[in-house]
Amino acid sequence: FNQQLESSYAEEPNSVAVMLPTHQKVVRLAHRPTTDIDPSYHLPLTYESVPTFPDDDGKTPLVLLHRLYLSIDPAMRGWMSSARSYLPPVAINAVMRGATLSEVVAVRGASRLKVGDVVSEFAGEAGGWQEYVIVSARSVRKIETWSELVDNHQQTPRELPLTIHLSVLGTTGLTAYFGFIHVGCPRLPSETKRPEVVLVNAAAGAVGSIVCQIAKNVYGCKVIGVAGSDAKCRLLIDDLKCCDAVINYREMENEVERGAGTADPAELFALKSTEFQKRLRRVLKQIDAKGLDIVFDNVGGYQLNECLSRLNYFARVAICGAISGYNNDLTKQQTDNNVSPTGLYMKHGMAIISLRAKIQGFIVLDYIKEWSNAKKELARWVLEGKIRYQKEDIRDGLENAPSALVDLFHGNNNGKLIVKVGEQQVKRKEIVSRL
Amino acid sequence: FNQQLESSYAEEPNSVAVMLPTHQKVVRLAHRPTTDIDPSYHLPLTYESVPTFPDDDGKTPLVLLHRLYLSIDPAMRGWMSSARSYLPPVAINAVMRGATLSEVVAVRGASRLKVGDVVSEFAGEAGGWQEYVIVSARSVRKIETWSELVDNHQQTPRELPLTIHLSVLGTTGLTAYFGFIHVGCPRLPSETKRPEVVLVNAAAGAVGSIVCQIAKNVYGCKVIGVAGSDAKCRLLIDDLKCCDAVINYREMENEVERGAGTADPAELFALKSTEFQKRLRRVLKQIDAKGLDIVFDNVGGYQLNECLSRLNYFARVAICGAISGYNNDLTKQQTDNNVSPTGLYMKHGMAIISLRAKIQGFIVLDYIKEWSNAKKELARWVLEGKIRYQKEDIRDGLENAPSALVDLFHGNNNGKLIVKVGEQQVKRKEIVSRL
Repeated sequence: FNQQLESSYAEEPNSVAVMLPTHQKVVRLAHRPTTDIDPSYHLPLTYESVPTFPDDDGKTPLVLLHRLYLSIDPAMRGWMSSARSYLPPVAINAVMRGATLSEVVAVRGASRLKVGDVVSEFAGEAGGWQEYVIVSARSVRKIETWSELVDNHQQTPRELPLTIHLSVLGTTGLTAYFGFIHVGCPRLPSETKRPEVVLVNAAAGAVGSIVCQIAKNVYGCKVIGVAGSDAKCRLLIDDLKCCDAVINYREMENEVERGAGTADPAELFALKSTEFQKRLRRVLKQIDAKGLDIVFDNVGGYQLNECLSRLNYFARVAICGAISGYNNDLTKQQTDNNVSPTGLYMKHGMAIISLRAKIQGFIVLDYIKEWSNAKKELARWVLEGKIRYQKEDIRDGLENAPSALVDLFHGNNNGKLIVKVGEQQVKRKEIVSRL
Repeated sequence: FNQQLESSYAEEPNSVAVMLPTHQKVVRLAHRPTTDIDPSYHLPLTYESVPTFPDDDGKTPLVLLHRLYLSIDPAMRGWMSSARSYLPPVAINAVMRGATLSEVVAVRGASRLKVGDVVSEFAGEAGGWQEYVIVSARSVRKIETWSELVDNHQQTPRELPLTIHLSVLGTTGLTAYFGFIHVGCPRLPSETKRPEVVLVNAAAGAVGSIVCQIAKNVYGCKVIGVAGSDAKCRLLIDDLKCCDAVINYREMENEVERGAGTADPAELFALKSTEFQKRLRRVLKQIDAKGLDIVFDNVGGYQLNECLSRLNYFARVAICGAISGYNNDLTKQQTDNNVSPTGLYMKHGMAIISLRAKIQGFIVLDYIKEWSNAKKELARWVLEGKIRYQKEDIRDGLENAPSALVDLFHGNNNGKLIVKVGEQQVKRKEIVSRL
């Protein structure tokens, strides 16, 4: 059957390996959210024709992709806004951008890609939130086999699913890797008198949990995790054993709100800041540490700002995301001189000098030339058990992607959020074993 | 005479090269200032005995130094406070710390130092604000000759005074060098499509004026200088020709205060911030630039904070000093959530991510192993005319050091502030030519 397919492809480039439907699900950005995302208003589902290869000179090698998985990431909120950023905003009425895994179901022209190859794509050039798309063969890359990733390891470990290429070996794991190692610059215990102290905000999240594990299991750091539920805190301490101490910030926020006697957001923000600072001191005492050497921040807001008051000499603050602020209306916060929930604020700012501290933002796409080596290290750590394969929260069907994104911002996910868009259709033995 | 001196030293180590007085002027830290410095209260002048070599085993080589010059630096304000910092606070009743140039007037024990050598000392181990001191010979270093600094340059350029070792070739120049080059990471025009845009706060100051000149004359950057008077702005534009545009922040502050109709410091701070932002946009337009690639900050406060809203992608912010905040009472600013004048505040803090910006504090002492090479580069740039030898504001007599420090914080100095503590007393031909 497969030989048939490939020979038919060779003779007749427009043939495809699977039966294609005439229509497909597509999610387009209809409006830009300013606060919370309303799935049907901002990201409505439409049904559109499945594309066919264009009737052109045929010189550009093209592939028809069938989407298997779509990664749901905090960065998507930024791409939906019109603010200047590291990637252009998704245009109104354009297909929503996303990191994906897809199978190649047809190839036109001279390409190394073959029908049945599984390819990944991170920056949205391969379409994003749609089931079928035709793109330049050069815009996607075939996912690595385990033998390409890890020396002397011919077979894929049985328990590792394909989706690991969207989580630990995708931008999620790479973000943890580059943020912690290249920006956070952790020092090995052999290089320091005492283990370095690392605080990770959103520690139980997809990126955060990998950072904690690298910090603890590879670098031997003392790790403080900040997470939003008891279950998440237990996961970090008891299950993954990657944190020495935890702070449940949501329980803390609820306590503050109950006790506050005010509903004024600015006052509540100040009260939460103060209480978080108290808890920070308490956990530092608990792990017998004086301050933070590395902060890996996914959150922004008061959680980041209070950490900036507890830095050690030569501390490094890697700013990766700001999930606390993504759904805030930035335009509303320019009126006065108060610290806004999206501001970066170091109360005694000039301590940054005597501490020689560094605060740096980063984006995983800047390290794209180094991804390949980083993936190899991450894969080795997975096989050595230093990074335990993380829980995935897989939702079924592209129509559920918008609500999954909403859940992500409310913390209503149970592990790395992925949408299963389609079932693998090209079934070849050699393909399956290659994954 | 000199041979006599040296031979008498060899035979009789306790002999000295000059007639010593019995008493000397010393300035000790009597109280820690919380706001402005009151010279006679915080830094009173006392008269004390000139020390003699101790009557011990004589194994530690010691030198008796006669102070020639004392550098007056913003960092001194920090050393006077009890806050944790990169150097321990000066103890109450201890001699005030300072960077100095001194001549060796006596040597005891086996040392490479000779009577008549001129030595420099930066971190206060050699006493600081006093006329005579005995210290370990290892705690000071002989200043380099020009032939040691610059290849094929046997003679000291005639117009360069000894005090250059406290300014361009002292911590002042080294601070500019390491902050701008190692933290600011400027790129040469050959490495970029457009010249990089640099903003220097306190641009006409001792450090700032060197940063501007390195930025302009060595790296070909576009330079914006922020300074506190028309005369300083003219110096930067017309005389040193090291800035493409300037902002007179003090004139701006006066305008804001006159027009404000309020004396509330928080409101004034907000108004000044807004006005500074406007001027920042205007000068950027003037030099046809969209944002800042490098900020070299000596000031802190609103001037730094507003710059953080105008950063380009991959911007670097080198935080060197915070002269605006040194005389504020830090303890008073913890009560509310307002941005304090000493806070570091990025209004849309999470823009640091999409910009991949870096904000980093630094201290010149961390680069001590690289000083020697940096001095060579600085000396070469001086000889090539890329750094013009800067104006010095030399005050006479140690008794005037405390008021000089006060003047520094009010901007009432006319160039690098130095106190001439004593006249060179050991006059040897070979010594003079060595300097």
